[in-house]
Amino acid sequence: MSSSDIFIGETIGTAVLILLGGGVCAAVTLKHSKAQNAGWLSIAFGWGFAVLTAAYLAGGVSGAHLNPAVTIGLAIKGGTAWSDVPLYIGSQLLGAMIGAVLVWLTYYGQFRAHLTDPETLYSRPSEEGMVDQAAAPKAGPVLGIFSTGPEIRNAVQNLVTEIIATVVLVLAILTQGLNNDGNGLGTLGALITSLVVVSIGLSLGGPTGYAINPVRDLGPRIVHALLPLPNKGGSDWGYAWIPVVGPLIGGAIAGGLYNLAFA
Amino acid sequence: MSSSDIFIGETIGTAVLILLGGGVCAAVTLKHSKAQNAGWLSIAFGWGFAVLTAAYLAGGVSGAHLNPAVTIGLAIKGGTAWSDVPLYIGSQLLGAMIGAVLVWLTYYGQFRAHLTDPETLYSRPSEEGMVDQAAAPKAGPVLGIFSTGPEIRNAVQNLVTEIIATVVLVLAILTQGLNNDGNGLGTLGALITSLVVVSIGLSLGGPTGYAINPVRDLGPRIVHALLPLPNKGGSDWGYAWIPVVGPLIGGAIAGGLYNLAFA
Amino acid sequence: MSSSDIFIGETIGTAVLILLGGGVCAAVTLKHSKAQNAGWLSIAFGWGFAVLTAAYLAGGVSGAHLNPAVTIGLAIKGGTAWSDVPLYIGSQLLGAMIGAVLVWLTYYGQFRAHLTDPETLYSRPSEEGMVDQAAAPKAGPVLGIFSTGPEIRNAVQNLVTEIIATVVLVLAILTQGLNNDGNGLGTLGALITSLVVVSIGLSLGGPTGYAINPVRDLGPRIVHALLPLPNKGGSDWGYAWIPVVGPLIGGAIAGGLYNLAFA
Amino acid sequence: MSSSDIFIGETIGTAVLILLGGGVCAAVTLKHSKAQNAGWLSIAFGWGFAVLTAAYLAGGVSGAHLNPAVTIGLAIKGGTAWSDVPLYIGSQLLGAMIGAVLVWLTYYGQFRAHLTDPETLYSRPSEEGMVDQAAAPKAGPVLGIFSTGPEIRNAVQNLVTEIIATVVLVLAILTQGLNNDGNGLGTLGALITSLVVVSIGLSLGGPTGYAINPVRDLGPRIVHALLPLPNKGGSDWGYAWIPVVGPLIGGAIAGGLYNLAFA
Repeated sequence: MSSSDIFIGETIGTAVLILLGGGVCAAVTLKHSKAQNAGWLSIAFGWGFAVLTAAYLAGGVSGAHLNPAVTIGLAIKGGTAWSDVPLYIGSQLLGAMIGAVLVWLTYYGQFRAHLTDPETLYSRPSEEGMVDQAAAPKAGPVLGIFSTGPEIRNAVQNLVTEIIATVVLVLAILTQGLNNDGNGLGTLGALITSLVVVSIGLSLGGPTGYAINPVRDLGPRIVHALLPLPNKGGSDWGYAWIPVVGPLIGGAIAGGLYNLAFA
Repeated sequence: MSSSDIFIGETIGTAVLILLGGGVCAAVTLKHSKAQNAGWLSIAFGWGFAVLTAAYLAGGVSGAHLNPAVTIGLAIKGGTAWSDVPLYIGSQLLGAMIGAVLVWLTYYGQFRAHLTDPETLYSRPSEEGMVDQAAAPKAGPVLGIFSTGPEIRNAVQNLVTEIIATVVLVLAILTQGLNNDGNGLGTLGALITSLVVVSIGLSLGGPTGYAINPVRDLGPRIVHALLPLPNKGGSDWGYAWIPVVGPLIGGAIAGGLYNLAFA
Repeated sequence: MSSSDIFIGETIGTAVLILLGGGVCAAVTLKHSKAQNAGWLSIAFGWGFAVLTAAYLAGGVSGAHLNPAVTIGLAIKGGTAWSDVPLYIGSQLLGAMIGAVLVWLTYYGQFRAHLTDPETLYSRPSEEGMVDQAAAPKAGPVLGIFSTGPEIRNAVQNLVTEIIATVVLVLAILTQGLNNDGNGLGTLGALITSLVVVSIGLSLGGPTGYAINPVRDLGPRIVHALLPLPNKGGSDWGYAWIPVVGPLIGGAIAGGLYNLAFA
Repeated sequence: MSSSDIFIGETIGTAVLILLGGGVCAAVTLKHSKAQNAGWLSIAFGWGFAVLTAAYLAGGVSGAHLNPAVTIGLAIKGGTAWSDVPLYIGSQLLGAMIGAVLVWLTYYGQFRAHLTDPETLYSRPSEEGMVDQAAAPKAGPVLGIFSTGPEIRNAVQNLVTEIIATVVLVLAILTQGLNNDGNGLGTLGALITSLVVVSIGLSLGGPTGYAINPVRDLGPRIVHALLPLPNKGGSDWGYAWIPVVGPLIGGAIAGGLYNLAFA
């Protein structure tokens, strides 16, 4: 696999992954979206089929890792050269940032309407207690369209949740989903991997929103910090390391477990 | 592929696509339908499996483009002869109109009941503000069963949304979904393409209702204008060019991107 | 294919189809069911995956028609001998009746609790107007667990709806879903056929509840008439011919259309 | 298949099955989970795709029985040696216990918050009647995250429901889902089996919550009894034999029926 194949496949593939994954979060969250309040099952299928679309599109080009945790797991398994890892991860991060910008372009009018509506601005749906209309504008819920955040903030617990969820993902991919020369997803493998992602979303996504992919969280968070969104609030950098470090640890554990138990 | 195969496959296939796709909109919208208010996830799966059924049915006959944006993308890629393009698109438009008539026949009683009920007539669920019972009858929400419409009306924004969504669809089809001589969908390809359509609906459908197919919007809109529906209101021709032009641009961009990056 | 294969495959297969299909209706309808009010999308997926399970189970034995409309369509196409048709249909009807009895056994306690609860007995969820607590016990909504019924009762409209929906089903099966010697469903064909059934449910099921299969409606209706359910009300025999005749006409039209357009 | 393959595949596979299956119950039940109240369809898809993930992961190692009822059915069919049965079942029970502990770790914060909130503690959503705030703490609804329980408690009825549901599962697996040397699940077989499980959940899960697998119920129940959860209440050992005995009988009936009708 040439460097240009890796760059093209991972950049375009991860851009599509985040466009569709961030897109379903925008669709369910923002005012004036036909899918507002479509529910958690829509989120889970939305992210799963985002993986399917992106893996289907990039599978024949770069193997469709689309996730540094998958790349690390494959490198530990021996299916990807360690020397290719930086290019994989760099392309994935670039693609994730492009995808987040595309979500913004797709939902441009919805973002504007949502973020300038007083009702949206001064309340946060997942917060309890009184809404203080006189308070200074706070971060609206739009950060959740870009990056994940915990329901209960506790670094150790959040890290454990992300590690466990990522081990499931990467172990499933390492075990059987590798039909193109041992380091990519075949068509049926892409379908099944996408349903594994639906499963992780439904089952393990409750506490932290299942980043299970460092660039899926970091790339859009950077874009959130840079975009000229009115009243967007902070980008919650204090939490940002958890959805990066947790999935990387999870991918490494999955790679080791694979070599130990399945090789 | 003979002209008669193209004509038969695309006409019947697109008719089934619109029968099932328009059908789920009727099922979720109309009074006295068992599926009323079944939600956006039902819409997204309904359209996705409409694509599956139609592609499965027509795949072996005409390659199951069912969408001028797909035909344009394939022509740019070189998988379909430019000389066949007019027949493909004409058959698709005819099929889309037949499909819209079949939706009307299937839901004949529901349309009649819905459009002659004062409560439905004088209110529009997605509108805010007071309902004026004394006002002249307005278009009920039945146009949405035929054609798409934007939540926030802005030509540039709506066009951008349709272009982005169509690029995702056509690029996915061009990249891997072509298992019959390079210009049709195999059985597994039809399944995955249908889930890509579910994905686009969930993730990118919020702003405009994802036409992503010129005839899917234009054919039923013509039928809406012609059908003898009581109190049906206008057919919103001012918006009609966007779901035609946007997807055509998207299909062309996808074809070009494919030749540039994936060929 | 031997007579005994046909008998065993169609009887067991159709019994499983109705057990699972009637089961989801019981699950969503009855009090003291964990799935009560799970919604139309659950119904549509429930019936679709009922077809998958039954077709997967019986596919290698009898070809898994499971539906006289499919058998008629295949006979017109030439994939099934006309002399086998009576055995197919008789086995399907027997299986459908067994399946309905199994639904009753599975939900025995729920049926009893539901049908002896005054609140359930004297009201019908889909009826408008006043609930008369002094009225004689009426048919509760449990007939809908066994057989279909229209939202708007009109013989011609209901027949048209059933015909159109059945043409879509049988045409899809005839066109590509026939991978075992031309008259059965392969594994992938069973999966896709099941998603076609989900599609028909979501899109065309609103007016009549999509029987699209004569024995699916008639077999359980006979069982409803025979079972010792307290306060069960009538079996609506006045409507019973429509979900028998409509699908048979639809299957025949699909067979003819196939021979005309696809053969 | 070596003993070590059976041990590794069944232990890891069943651990993943219960992690994801118990996980979706936790996700939908617990406070401060993003998926709270996501509905029965989410539960059904969650358990189905849990089977997919686990079967995909363990299929090539141990054949992915993951369920003593499947192992018994395969032994009766002749696809698994009786001498391997104890190792299969022991590994499955160990895996199920590990999986339940992993659910607890994943949702650690949610369990703690849920079980120490007075509102959760003194009420039970599925109970009717008055909530007595002065009563002694009762079992909160968290037992349902570990093990199944009936909506209407009646040993014979509950046993019949579990037997019927398990016969459907095991018969489907025995009939066609065996593509690896006759005693394992191929990739497509794993997908279809998982959708059969979705079907059983939607259609037959209403009365008892569909254990259909002795270790799926017993393993997590043991863990519930051992875990240091505050205010967790009893583990309902009076019901515990039904989801063990029912599925074992169902698996044996399916094996016998297979040999009689399908072999």
